[in-house]
Amino acid sequence: MKGMILVIDGLGDRPVQKLGNKTPLQKANTPNLDKIAENGINGIMDSIAPGIRPGSDTAHIAILGYDPYAVYTGRGPFEAFGVGLNIKAGDIAFRCNFSTVDDEFIVVDRRAGRIKEDTSPLIEELNKMKIEGYEDIEIIFKKSTGHRAVLVLRGANLSDEITDADPKVVEKPLKTVYPTENSSNAKKTADLLNKIIKESYNVLKNHPLNLNRIGNNEIPANIVIPRGVGIVPEVEEFNKKYGLNSACIAETGLIIGIARFAGMDIIEVEGSTGSVNTNLDKFIDTILNAVNNTDHDFFLINIKGADESGHDGNAEEKMKFIEKVDKIVFSKISQLQNIVTIVTADHSTPVTVKDHSADPVPVLIYGNGVRVDDVKRFNEIDSVKGGLLRIRGSDLMNILTDLMDKTHKFGA
Amino acid sequence: MKGMILVIDGLGDRPVQKLGNKTPLQKANTPNLDKIAENGINGIMDSIAPGIRPGSDTAHIAILGYDPYAVYTGRGPFEAFGVGLNIKAGDIAFRCNFSTVDDEFIVVDRRAGRIKEDTSPLIEELNKMKIEGYEDIEIIFKKSTGHRAVLVLRGANLSDEITDADPKVVEKPLKTVYPTENSSNAKKTADLLNKIIKESYNVLKNHPLNLNRIGNNEIPANIVIPRGVGIVPEVEEFNKKYGLNSACIAETGLIIGIARFAGMDIIEVEGSTGSVNTNLDKFIDTILNAVNNTDHDFFLINIKGADESGHDGNAEEKMKFIEKVDKIVFSKISQLQNIVTIVTADHSTPVTVKDHSADPVPVLIYGNGVRVDDVKRFNEIDSVKGGLLRIRGSDLMNILTDLMDKTHKFGA
Repeated sequence: MKGMILVIDGLGDRPVQKLGNKTPLQKANTPNLDKIAENGINGIMDSIAPGIRPGSDTAHIAILGYDPYAVYTGRGPFEAFGVGLNIKAGDIAFRCNFSTVDDEFIVVDRRAGRIKEDTSPLIEELNKMKIEGYEDIEIIFKKSTGHRAVLVLRGANLSDEITDADPKVVEKPLKTVYPTENSSNAKKTADLLNKIIKESYNVLKNHPLNLNRIGNNEIPANIVIPRGVGIVPEVEEFNKKYGLNSACIAETGLIIGIARFAGMDIIEVEGSTGSVNTNLDKFIDTILNAVNNTDHDFFLINIKGADESGHDGNAEEKMKFIEKVDKIVFSKISQLQNIVTIVTADHSTPVTVKDHSADPVPVLIYGNGVRVDDVKRFNEIDSVKGGLLRIRGSDLMNILTDLMDKTHKFGA
Repeated sequence: MKGMILVIDGLGDRPVQKLGNKTPLQKANTPNLDKIAENGINGIMDSIAPGIRPGSDTAHIAILGYDPYAVYTGRGPFEAFGVGLNIKAGDIAFRCNFSTVDDEFIVVDRRAGRIKEDTSPLIEELNKMKIEGYEDIEIIFKKSTGHRAVLVLRGANLSDEITDADPKVVEKPLKTVYPTENSSNAKKTADLLNKIIKESYNVLKNHPLNLNRIGNNEIPANIVIPRGVGIVPEVEEFNKKYGLNSACIAETGLIIGIARFAGMDIIEVEGSTGSVNTNLDKFIDTILNAVNNTDHDFFLINIKGADESGHDGNAEEKMKFIEKVDKIVFSKISQLQNIVTIVTADHSTPVTVKDHSADPVPVLIYGNGVRVDDVKRFNEIDSVKGGLLRIRGSDLMNILTDLMDKTHKFGA
């Protein structure tokens, strides 16, 4: 028996006046999803807890059975996992921007004119950096998309109890990094980071790529500004925790980062854009191939588009994307055999809020052994009447693995 | 006002194809239970938490309001309570088998040919045991049923951080017990246990009962092999915790052990077999007598048969046993006065799984003051629609004692 959690990112919503006070999911024509709901058990879910507005990252952490309050030490580690850095418990990780400063370290542009060139040559130079007095600390840069990068510090006696260097606005000076606790580790890490930032300016300001940009009347990517510090947490590997051989199929680095953090394999999808124009045909083909032709027995799947429409406040687009997912993806999901399928969202992204909200999301479980209830439609209103009632994200893996008969009895 | 939790062990189930995709409870004809449901408040319950597959022991611990993760240190202490040993917090307890080894301590039979004789004479000799260097430690053996026994070590500086001696299979040597942490207490306890096991061989090998068995061509019960180590936890007595005078009516040593652990009185039932052929007439007479004619004001009741049918995968038998319990027991339960009655299960034992599962169980509360809902049948599907919604085992005693008006206001 295999298992799958299919997350439609940001699916949950609130009643929308121009949809006749229905939610986009409620208003959408979703015959395939509804058929699965009718033959499954339904309910609503708070990914973290009632009233807690989750990020996609913290929600997925909770859904995978980890406590986000314990393991989500900052965005840095999950960005580092996302770009495929092989980071280890105890590493200190940051997300970074390539930025532009003047020679008095006043920020001119936080994103270096949204630099389009491949930043690999800049990263290569940065990775040669040595800071006097900190020769025992490994300083690791890795590029991400566009102006984005990741910085990891590895070594003894480091701390994530430090402030940000990023002033978050232009025309302000770079912030000095301070320790936020009175410990020698925090003082050491803050001092090291200040020196790394200054040294990045020395490394980058006359780099050929930047001289070329200046020659083209573009602003140079002449400094790295780190933020979102976090210490990489020590956690039990997902496969070991649940006795599974797991894989993730997702469209965004953020979710892939969470999956890598949990130690899952990553299956890539061709033509994926993370948007409503993503190639859903390739997406469902990838799912079917993974389920039917690999040794993986658990899949975390994330389809992103609905969240984007939510952030854009576009109810019509959200509804139409849901209908497209129903037609292309769920028509085939319902035909899978020997798999327990969970369909849910990581959080609501109401078009009226244009951001995540804490409203619970619908959840359904379909497959062998479930106590089928009388819910006939999958949405924020109908799913409430189902047999699961109201559960939490942290319950999901336990319920799924129990239905897969993978759990161990606690006691006799 | 009195109170009662009546647990039908392993009652919960999943849809069964040959019962028309109904559960045994759903398919069963249970007019008396349904009448109680119709006049009560209903819901579903996770005895520990959603997705957690409970043992009968850990589920009952949770239902009685104790945290099984804190107090369930191992099976040993609960077996020791079950055989009626007066054990104390800090004691180290083991379940044991009388087993058969050869003179090189290779295990020949883990159950000494399922010895049928009364093992009291062996226990009597074992209880005279003194181990050199450990004269301050009390070594207490007590017999259980058949080849089973219990060992308790009492004294200062002992630990339950040790491995098992039981190889679990035959034709393997007895395992040496090792400490699982680097503490002098763990090292001391492991060393003592190794010496006790060896000494049990010296005590038993030429015991007259064994010489007699050998004369009859039976293998001797020539060693004791302990397993399931646990330290007896310190807990508040149940009666004190809830202001009650409680008693347990149950069929199995495991449940009676939990009740003794909580400090409850035990009321025995004549003719009880712990099986579907148990004497339910005597059972209900015992309940009625206890409720009407004793000073006890709370009863934990456990009827075992349905769980057995679940483990056997026998849907028809499970359904018929439920109907028998309805007819004999619930016809009279519904007539009791001045008592708040909770009917539930400790866990599901689906006939399709043949073991416990994490599926929630139905729960109903009947008696003065409850908010009667519109649920008309007591089962895994209908109870979901009731006024209790989804609760946990750990909520049960609090809800019950509140309805009994025994709780104290928290705050002003």
